[in-house]
Amino acid sequence: MGTKKLELRPVSEMSTSKDSDTNYTAANVKAPRMAGLLLRCFTWMMESDIFGLIFRLKLKKDNLITKVFQQTEYHEPPMFQPHFPIEEVEESGVIQLEQNRSPPDHVARALECLYPLPSRNAIGDRNRHPFLHWKIRDYAEAFVSGRITPYLVAERFLSAVEDSCNRSPNMCFFIAYNEEDILRQASESTARHAKGKPLSVLDGVPIAVKDEIDCFPYLTTGGTKWMQKVRKVKDDAACIKRLRACGALLVGKTNMHELGQGTTGINPHYGAVRNPYDKDRCAGGSSGGSAAAVAAGLCPAALGVDGGGSVRMPAALCGVVGLKGTYGRVSSAGVLPLNWTLGSVGILAASVEDTLIMYTAIQGHLAQDWIASFPPAANLPILKDFEDGDLSKSKIISSIKIAKYSKWFDDSDKSVRTTCYSALNVLQQEYGVKVLEVTIPELEEMRLAHFITIGSEISASIGIDYDRMGIHDSGADIRVCFALYGSFSTRELLSAQRMRFRQMHYHMEIFKTADLIVTPTTAATAPVCSADGLN
Amino acid sequence: MGTKKLELRPVSEMSTSKDSDTNYTAANVKAPRMAGLLLRCFTWMMESDIFGLIFRLKLKKDNLITKVFQQTEYHEPPMFQPHFPIEEVEESGVIQLEQNRSPPDHVARALECLYPLPSRNAIGDRNRHPFLHWKIRDYAEAFVSGRITPYLVAERFLSAVEDSCNRSPNMCFFIAYNEEDILRQASESTARHAKGKPLSVLDGVPIAVKDEIDCFPYLTTGGTKWMQKVRKVKDDAACIKRLRACGALLVGKTNMHELGQGTTGINPHYGAVRNPYDKDRCAGGSSGGSAAAVAAGLCPAALGVDGGGSVRMPAALCGVVGLKGTYGRVSSAGVLPLNWTLGSVGILAASVEDTLIMYTAIQGHLAQDWIASFPPAANLPILKDFEDGDLSKSKIISSIKIAKYSKWFDDSDKSVRTTCYSALNVLQQEYGVKVLEVTIPELEEMRLAHFITIGSEISASIGIDYDRMGIHDSGADIRVCFALYGSFSTRELLSAQRMRFRQMHYHMEIFKTADLIVTPTTAATAPVCSADGLN
Repeated sequence: MGTKKLELRPVSEMSTSKDSDTNYTAANVKAPRMAGLLLRCFTWMMESDIFGLIFRLKLKKDNLITKVFQQTEYHEPPMFQPHFPIEEVEESGVIQLEQNRSPPDHVARALECLYPLPSRNAIGDRNRHPFLHWKIRDYAEAFVSGRITPYLVAERFLSAVEDSCNRSPNMCFFIAYNEEDILRQASESTARHAKGKPLSVLDGVPIAVKDEIDCFPYLTTGGTKWMQKVRKVKDDAACIKRLRACGALLVGKTNMHELGQGTTGINPHYGAVRNPYDKDRCAGGSSGGSAAAVAAGLCPAALGVDGGGSVRMPAALCGVVGLKGTYGRVSSAGVLPLNWTLGSVGILAASVEDTLIMYTAIQGHLAQDWIASFPPAANLPILKDFEDGDLSKSKIISSIKIAKYSKWFDDSDKSVRTTCYSALNVLQQEYGVKVLEVTIPELEEMRLAHFITIGSEISASIGIDYDRMGIHDSGADIRVCFALYGSFSTRELLSAQRMRFRQMHYHMEIFKTADLIVTPTTAATAPVCSADGLN
Repeated sequence: MGTKKLELRPVSEMSTSKDSDTNYTAANVKAPRMAGLLLRCFTWMMESDIFGLIFRLKLKKDNLITKVFQQTEYHEPPMFQPHFPIEEVEESGVIQLEQNRSPPDHVARALECLYPLPSRNAIGDRNRHPFLHWKIRDYAEAFVSGRITPYLVAERFLSAVEDSCNRSPNMCFFIAYNEEDILRQASESTARHAKGKPLSVLDGVPIAVKDEIDCFPYLTTGGTKWMQKVRKVKDDAACIKRLRACGALLVGKTNMHELGQGTTGINPHYGAVRNPYDKDRCAGGSSGGSAAAVAAGLCPAALGVDGGGSVRMPAALCGVVGLKGTYGRVSSAGVLPLNWTLGSVGILAASVEDTLIMYTAIQGHLAQDWIASFPPAANLPILKDFEDGDLSKSKIISSIKIAKYSKWFDDSDKSVRTTCYSALNVLQQEYGVKVLEVTIPELEEMRLAHFITIGSEISASIGIDYDRMGIHDSGADIRVCFALYGSFSTRELLSAQRMRFRQMHYHMEIFKTADLIVTPTTAATAPVCSADGLN
């Protein structure tokens, strides 16, 4: 209720060109770093009525929230969901996945776009370590040729997971995997293959699922000790139904940052997910278990959920592909409703090819799920230009324009920056891709708007049960988060949606001149899993 | 942050049939009724940090807000805007107004749907009192025939308004009317008519505009003393541009309940709008001036804005037609952004015919206004079956099915109820319309959800300026409202949007079996303008 008033220029007066006069503000989180007894004291104070009020106000003020979302005037309306007008552009070299076809049909269409499977020799190495690090088509080829059965893969998978748990430290990839259920699915798949009638290229292929997505008969814990007590799983999530229709072998529920509210993947109840490239380091989060299981080669792909980097960040830290799908493209029916306007089911996979196959399998909605699919998503376009197996010949690749905001790109550790620049160089030198310098204004303000939004939504969504049960059985970071989330005002929440409008405008402006925006996914490599359990 | 938990059954288990087992809860606002010194004390306490906190919590608790929006679990996602899937149904006897045509084109299409103008004799009475109570086509016919000019109408209008101000009491229809601007427009219209080239049937017809809609060169006060100091009007609102394109004679800015936050139309700065049918009674609000100006016969139609009955209620209390347009049908560019997800520009007119002409004139968006028109509105269908001039012959009228929730319908004063039942009888007996008994669950809960939503949105939209300037110069009712609005939590706001989802579901269910829902617009007739100024 201050009397200061700041003002943001209307978006129409803002520029996203390289000469834009806006400043880049590096993220600067002002919060005390603490652990042990100090953290416990701080948590208690944050949750207390009076100390908490003072602390929360101070935290919001120190972190620009008061300034940007209470004292600043906006000229734009709120944008509650990331919707934008669909451009139905006719593009050559692209096929459109029509809605209302079955998941196996969609997967079959995706396969048509892939270059031919490399000859047996090329995957010879993989055959010496049966199934680890196989791609989806490697499995399919091995199943069809009869060299291995899904049942045998399931047995080897179970033994490999057990092995990962018995290592020191425990790798903590999974929260649950049910041997009986896995072997039953594998038998059924094996029988289909024996009859020569697999449901799709995914039939019998092991796929892991983040423990935020309903996959019957598993519980859905969301990484907590209490969610499963208040929310019963009676059915598969919509995306899981689609994977089952393709015959996928669902191999269990992966570990995650508690309630998705963090990026390390360190879970106080189910352990810290370890990075397969360096077991002393985190896998990242929140979909850490899915990223690590894929990086360890246990499955070619896994599902995650991404509301603020929760698929993309652990993917980056584990060196796998991470795709957060377009909002609304994949049904969120049967996914823990930790938020409504930010999260999407996403894919972690060892290759772009497998990401494509998975995305075509899970995308789409059930007919009765009208609200989630409104406005209706456009058809999914797939580039069919991979067929010749040599990207450098592709006209489409060389016509791609990449937008880059250098101040943001460069705001990363040297090792990350160097690697990203060499990747970019390959695209430019070898494939003729053009890079266009742009400005994305208000990135730090948008980060804060996202924080307010995700906090308010989770608080509204599961707050009643959290207050009754979760608070007694949650990690300190969750408790501090929830204390802060409860302090956001409706004015802050609505201002945050007006910031979302502005950011959508900037992105639409940039996509008028470029096809994609390139940036390091994380500014640092995987952090060490330190003893205090909070990175 | 209580530990109680209530639960609403999922909407899929709710019934809207007449046998539904849900209860009807009559609205029961629990707040002290006060005036004078007591009201001033209460206002001071509501605004104070500590007393206010206690009062606000108590008000929210007494009025079910805590119970329904803090302690109740919902199974549905939030619905932030009243969007629903568009059904593009082919209907016979209906024409579709395509978008992207000019307003005069749209108006011309509307005219094609009207029965022929009654012969001169029928409007003979009106000619004895020149221009008062004329309909739009009466004006057009008189202008074209040369019996009167727009300039003469403007002069008579100005003298009639002056007369309404000099009565005891002052009728307070207008906040501003600019003689020079009105006469200039009238001269231009007269010149067009002299050349035989009117822009449309609206050319030269006086139309009043609620002082919440930008109409250059007038200020837009929103019924306050301060809004015009912080928000300058540089252009016409989109709907005003459309009326100008039709040649309408814009005759000034009508009085309204301060900031639209009330339903009496009593404004502490610009006076209480008096009801033309009984000057001791209110015209209603918030678009009271527009309703009363039309009821007094000063103009055939006026614009209002309706976020919670602000067009429909004063229309009912003044005995004119009130139409709140479909959300998104009329652009809200240039309308005071008092809220974003509830309000629509609407029409107050003396006849259904004039409502149709006005609606076709103002509907539609500017191309750059993509956010307001997303998802795009369907074409506006107009019934063209009026042509034979006898509704009883119409097959379409007799095929209409009306839904009625009797417990709600009957929750009104006897005089209102009796009148509404006789109107319904006419429709049933003379036109063969079918009435279907239904249940609309959770109406009182939705009323509260609406209150939370409209309060949070106005608070986010103009709160910064209100805190700086408005609080010092607003009526007591506004100050109490704003103190309460600031107390809603993000959880309450998001729960309210989940209630909106439920209510949209019920309405979609009912509209599967019925074409419209019938209900008295207000449960009581116009209240007396009492001395305390708050009725």
